[in-house]
Amino acid sequence: MEVSWIMERPVVNIGIIGLGVVGKGVLKILNDNKELISRRTGKEIVIKKAAARTEKTLLASGLPKQILTTDPIEILEDKEIDIVIELIGGYEPAKDFIEQAIKNKKSVVTANKEVIAKSGYDLLKLANENNVYLRFEASAVGGVPIIASLYRSLTSYDIDRLMGIINGTTNYILTEMYRSGVSFSQCLKEAQQKGYAESDPTKDIEGYDAAYKITILASLAFGAKIDIDSVYREGITGIDPIDIRYADGLNYRIKLIALASKEDGKIDVRVHPMLVSKTHPIANIEGVYNAVFTEGKGYGKLLFSGPGAGSLPAASMVVSDLVDIVRLYGRPYIEDLSYNHFKDLPILSIENTKNAYYLRLRVTDKPGVLALIANSFAVHKVSFASVIQKEAFRDDVDVVFLTHETEEFRIRGALSSIEKYPEIKGVASLIRVLKD
Amino acid sequence: MEVSWIMERPVVNIGIIGLGVVGKGVLKILNDNKELISRRTGKEIVIKKAAARTEKTLLASGLPKQILTTDPIEILEDKEIDIVIELIGGYEPAKDFIEQAIKNKKSVVTANKEVIAKSGYDLLKLANENNVYLRFEASAVGGVPIIASLYRSLTSYDIDRLMGIINGTTNYILTEMYRSGVSFSQCLKEAQQKGYAESDPTKDIEGYDAAYKITILASLAFGAKIDIDSVYREGITGIDPIDIRYADGLNYRIKLIALASKEDGKIDVRVHPMLVSKTHPIANIEGVYNAVFTEGKGYGKLLFSGPGAGSLPAASMVVSDLVDIVRLYGRPYIEDLSYNHFKDLPILSIENTKNAYYLRLRVTDKPGVLALIANSFAVHKVSFASVIQKEAFRDDVDVVFLTHETEEFRIRGALSSIEKYPEIKGVASLIRVLKD
Repeated sequence: MEVSWIMERPVVNIGIIGLGVVGKGVLKILNDNKELISRRTGKEIVIKKAAARTEKTLLASGLPKQILTTDPIEILEDKEIDIVIELIGGYEPAKDFIEQAIKNKKSVVTANKEVIAKSGYDLLKLANENNVYLRFEASAVGGVPIIASLYRSLTSYDIDRLMGIINGTTNYILTEMYRSGVSFSQCLKEAQQKGYAESDPTKDIEGYDAAYKITILASLAFGAKIDIDSVYREGITGIDPIDIRYADGLNYRIKLIALASKEDGKIDVRVHPMLVSKTHPIANIEGVYNAVFTEGKGYGKLLFSGPGAGSLPAASMVVSDLVDIVRLYGRPYIEDLSYNHFKDLPILSIENTKNAYYLRLRVTDKPGVLALIANSFAVHKVSFASVIQKEAFRDDVDVVFLTHETEEFRIRGALSSIEKYPEIKGVASLIRVLKD
Repeated sequence: MEVSWIMERPVVNIGIIGLGVVGKGVLKILNDNKELISRRTGKEIVIKKAAARTEKTLLASGLPKQILTTDPIEILEDKEIDIVIELIGGYEPAKDFIEQAIKNKKSVVTANKEVIAKSGYDLLKLANENNVYLRFEASAVGGVPIIASLYRSLTSYDIDRLMGIINGTTNYILTEMYRSGVSFSQCLKEAQQKGYAESDPTKDIEGYDAAYKITILASLAFGAKIDIDSVYREGITGIDPIDIRYADGLNYRIKLIALASKEDGKIDVRVHPMLVSKTHPIANIEGVYNAVFTEGKGYGKLLFSGPGAGSLPAASMVVSDLVDIVRLYGRPYIEDLSYNHFKDLPILSIENTKNAYYLRLRVTDKPGVLALIANSFAVHKVSFASVIQKEAFRDDVDVVFLTHETEEFRIRGALSSIEKYPEIKGVASLIRVLKD
């Protein structure tokens, strides 16, 4: 009885391009939860074709041979395929595949943060024009359904501020550096051994991954077109265990923070390490976990947290996008996410952002040096919240400053003016401090 | 130009019943964010009629006199009204109003947890049959969009476990008791003065409010019909500052926890105070803030947190439901939340649930008493994780036990067998302990 009832459900054909970590997760979910998903959508999802780059990957998928191909064009041009799931990652050729699928009137689900961050607006416009859906929940904060919350649930007010830890690899490394006290490169090596960092970790540790994600989140939150090249970005490769220790003593943690805010029509969006007070809830987000805080007039402070990556968490969001489109399938098109919502808004340059700063200078251990620094900073209108003399290194000494909030160009001006003095051996660290 | 463009948008007429705290918030949002909402929905929302119980409330709303009424029937029977927002709270007559609106082919948005917890299934069925929408995001965890996440984003797996702090009043009182060390009744009085507790606080402090909410959340998470009467419920009126202090010493906080889990097809759903390890993220949810953790195979642990109540946070979720329906308005009906998803599942009785326990006994300070207790507990197969002798009270002494996990009927059996002994002056406290 049950079986014949299922057979009567309308069929929706999908094609999957990319059978890596997330792709395998999607196959597993569609297989394990077939009945659950069928009940939820009222339709039956059939994998019509699956593409991967190598025969080996294809065969390892366990899918029937006759639906496997190494040529994604077969999926993009298959007239019977209704929805394409793109999971190959990277900008090209993924962007072309998505574009081609949309032009061929197929809805698309993607987990591709780089494509969405760089070309999301154009692709969404193309999807709107072709009356198909483009969904990308897994493209930011992997297993956490924040994208749907932004464009579907947080619709009655604008969002003013968004902030979080949105890269699992760097948060894992910083957590381990804090716990063990060892160097960045040592922790990176361990993260690679444990599979938390890729063999080429550049995108994670240099902050590109987080920059893609905050661009996507900020675009949705503010209804803004954001050029990824205008997003300020610093990674964690320069974080010294000494600074983690000094910050600890001041009751702070160091985290790679992505933040975005809108004020007076200008958008401030960036990724860089920050000192975070231990009393701030984000300080307790450890390891590969991610968290995003949103704030908006009327909403109060909301927190969304969960696994930032991982095969099944990310795949579960891909499948939830798929379920969403399948539910809508065969009905008049609803533009619930329209490219029209996104306007050009000016981006604040990093020099004009306001921050408090943690500053570590290595100076000659002589009388008068502090006065010299204090004078230079006063000229540039930077004032200190606290000054702490730290460990000595032969004739030199580390001095740590916490400044009050000021524009970044002022602190940069102050630093370049003191660097001329021979007593100043170097600016060892300059890290921004998160306001509570 | 802008104006004429707006005027061309299709109009959706709404009626609002109830202009209390949340109702006023809804009016404010619809007024302040008219253009934003119109842009997001592609339609213009017009308040056709508003009802409240008293003339005074009506006039205070600032709405034009000609759309005000003290008779909700006028809204329910107005053929031009497309969507009804019900915000009067309480079971009757709210449930009748919602039913009537649906029968008259109007979609309904409600923030009414009692109605949804008790009659959600029947009302959803009625809405499905009448091809109208019933939305209730603000009915559980006020300003946090968890309901939409449950039925729209967490669709690729079942959820196995759901747990949280979902009543702001009790969390505020417990936070204050912890900070100040004063009694429950004193903290309640202060909460009432500050507007965090109602003049009749029964629904909050006895756990009814949290029971309604966890019933709604668990129903959605598990796809289950849950009879509210089978949900075990304990409030916080019996929490003694001594226990908060003792728990603190053991590195625990006491919180009112709502939890729901599904195992072997049986549902365990309940509300009661619990000891929560200070290292658990939920221990840091303070004051009127709420938080819900969800767990499911494939999803990992997700956390949703934000203001549990408040005029604008709750109203923003009501308006987001409204935006959602308005977007769909005038198109073929989509049953994205079908009563068909909800199945009868057996509920585990509290006696058969498994918990670890915090137990405070007042006993005569004599040799042999501990042996007597230990023997009785051993007979009932309850084993201790730790035993701590606490303060003396004349000839008596408080002894605090933490047990290993066991079925509740065993600890109840053990307690009733020792209560017979004259050396046992009383079971001062029995509080369940949350597993990490």
